[in-house]
Amino acid sequence: MNSLAIPLWLDVVAVGFGGLAGALAARRRGFDIVGVLFLAVIGGLGGALLRDLLLQVPVRALTSPWLLPSAFLGGLLVAPLLALVGPLRFRRDVAFTLLDAMSLAMYSVLGTDRAMTVGLPPISCVFVGTVAGVGGALIRDVLINEQPEHFKPGSFYVLAAVPGCIAYFVMRTLELPVLVSAVVAVGVVITVRMSSWSLNWQTGRRRSA
Amino acid sequence: MNSLAIPLWLDVVAVGFGGLAGALAARRRGFDIVGVLFLAVIGGLGGALLRDLLLQVPVRALTSPWLLPSAFLGGLLVAPLLALVGPLRFRRDVAFTLLDAMSLAMYSVLGTDRAMTVGLPPISCVFVGTVAGVGGALIRDVLINEQPEHFKPGSFYVLAAVPGCIAYFVMRTLELPVLVSAVVAVGVVITVRMSSWSLNWQTGRRRSA
Amino acid sequence: MNSLAIPLWLDVVAVGFGGLAGALAARRRGFDIVGVLFLAVIGGLGGALLRDLLLQVPVRALTSPWLLPSAFLGGLLVAPLLALVGPLRFRRDVAFTLLDAMSLAMYSVLGTDRAMTVGLPPISCVFVGTVAGVGGALIRDVLINEQPEHFKPGSFYVLAAVPGCIAYFVMRTLELPVLVSAVVAVGVVITVRMSSWSLNWQTGRRRSA
Repeated sequence: MNSLAIPLWLDVVAVGFGGLAGALAARRRGFDIVGVLFLAVIGGLGGALLRDLLLQVPVRALTSPWLLPSAFLGGLLVAPLLALVGPLRFRRDVAFTLLDAMSLAMYSVLGTDRAMTVGLPPISCVFVGTVAGVGGALIRDVLINEQPEHFKPGSFYVLAAVPGCIAYFVMRTLELPVLVSAVVAVGVVITVRMSSWSLNWQTGRRRSA
Repeated sequence: MNSLAIPLWLDVVAVGFGGLAGALAARRRGFDIVGVLFLAVIGGLGGALLRDLLLQVPVRALTSPWLLPSAFLGGLLVAPLLALVGPLRFRRDVAFTLLDAMSLAMYSVLGTDRAMTVGLPPISCVFVGTVAGVGGALIRDVLINEQPEHFKPGSFYVLAAVPGCIAYFVMRTLELPVLVSAVVAVGVVITVRMSSWSLNWQTGRRRSA
Repeated sequence: MNSLAIPLWLDVVAVGFGGLAGALAARRRGFDIVGVLFLAVIGGLGGALLRDLLLQVPVRALTSPWLLPSAFLGGLLVAPLLALVGPLRFRRDVAFTLLDAMSLAMYSVLGTDRAMTVGLPPISCVFVGTVAGVGGALIRDVLINEQPEHFKPGSFYVLAAVPGCIAYFVMRTLELPVLVSAVVAVGVVITVRMSSWSLNWQTGRRRSA
């Protein structure tokens, strides 16, 4: 029914990164192992679930036996990763933001791609890509009852996802190869997100507000 | 597959009003332009998305290229609207509540209508209409991490939507014309909502609690 | 299309318990009758809605004319139930937690069962069962803007649902009768949840944190 251009393994990797980011968010709030794993699963699968439900295609997060274990694995890897990064708060912040940005970037591209396969109009493809990109983190933040950072002034989540989705849509419409388009679009999202973040980190004040 | 009684342009208008109400809610909390537009899109499309996902019909908010731009436009119009209304807090409150009530009313009717087209039992039609009516504002409030006003004592959101949905259902079952039924039902919702609101505003105390 | 092993009346009963638990949660926060009934409907139907939307099967909460009235009835029964239980805070806590646990248990089993009927892989069946189990309470808590208790350290919601779902899945795969499997699995969930809760209640401190 839907022959996706982007292969399964990319979904698996994206879910894994989302799981890691979700687990890190849970750790930062001092959740125990159950909370960490639950948020890993939600943060990992949230974007993929939202995407497929919105597009009304089979929910890959459930029909494939690979996605849930990948999110779980992300949750289990958070402890060794934190050990690796070390106790410095700054390095942890960088690690968290980078993982979050990678998850954001991959889901944005995967969401745009699948929306294109379904044949939605351009603006809807970019919308679904953006929702898939920010969705996992959004659901995660809502469930732990925090105001999602995505709405705070100066946070470049949505603003990082949108140009990436547009870039992917344009490149694919021009029939550039899938992998090239995906790598460039992922690069766009990560670049915008990380430069905005490091800028924020320098100015400092607003993050604590 | 689904021949809706209510035409596309009404969906477009309802989404626009929802977008305006969402953008106003964002402005009140001091969000920047990105937050305003994001909440406009969510507040505008939320009800339509929830409705179509619940009914498992094609998601018009995505398949039609008109609904997203309409929500966006609502978000862009908020600045000129606020300039028009002027700086008085009371007039802004009236404008916000009225827009919110119009969005509530239109979505309630549209949701009931589409549920009837799908052939759901009466109680489900009223339920879907009510969820579609309050859904956009509910998702919006959850995302900005506020307790939705809908649950606060004395707020007549749900109580305004339900009689409107029932009225529309009864009139359509009696085979009154679509437009007459819609106008009456929208009138019911707006009347209940606005009179309850102005009453609350007079008694005053509870709103601040 | 989908010949469910578990009959409709079980869904109706589960929704009723969920409705009662939702209404109790609303009462505890001092909501008025509208808020109580709204939360009863959401707490009652939430799990069933989430389950069917995730599985992309017809949404029984809407197609059946029995589920919504059942949730409503649960909401209406909360006042007589509270009168019956009496004013003692401890007895009310027990009543609330027990109802919540029964709703959790029944939805977990029903969710696992329906996921098996759809033919999902084992891990997804357990996931859908768990999400259906905790979903109603989760949506309820998110809507009233509380951090869901499910994530708090030491709360055995998810940890109670998962073994119940696994037990049901294993027993059904071994072709044990539906009713036996369901009763055992429901027993597992309630036992784990209630013993963890009473333990928490003894240690006391963490609940208030």
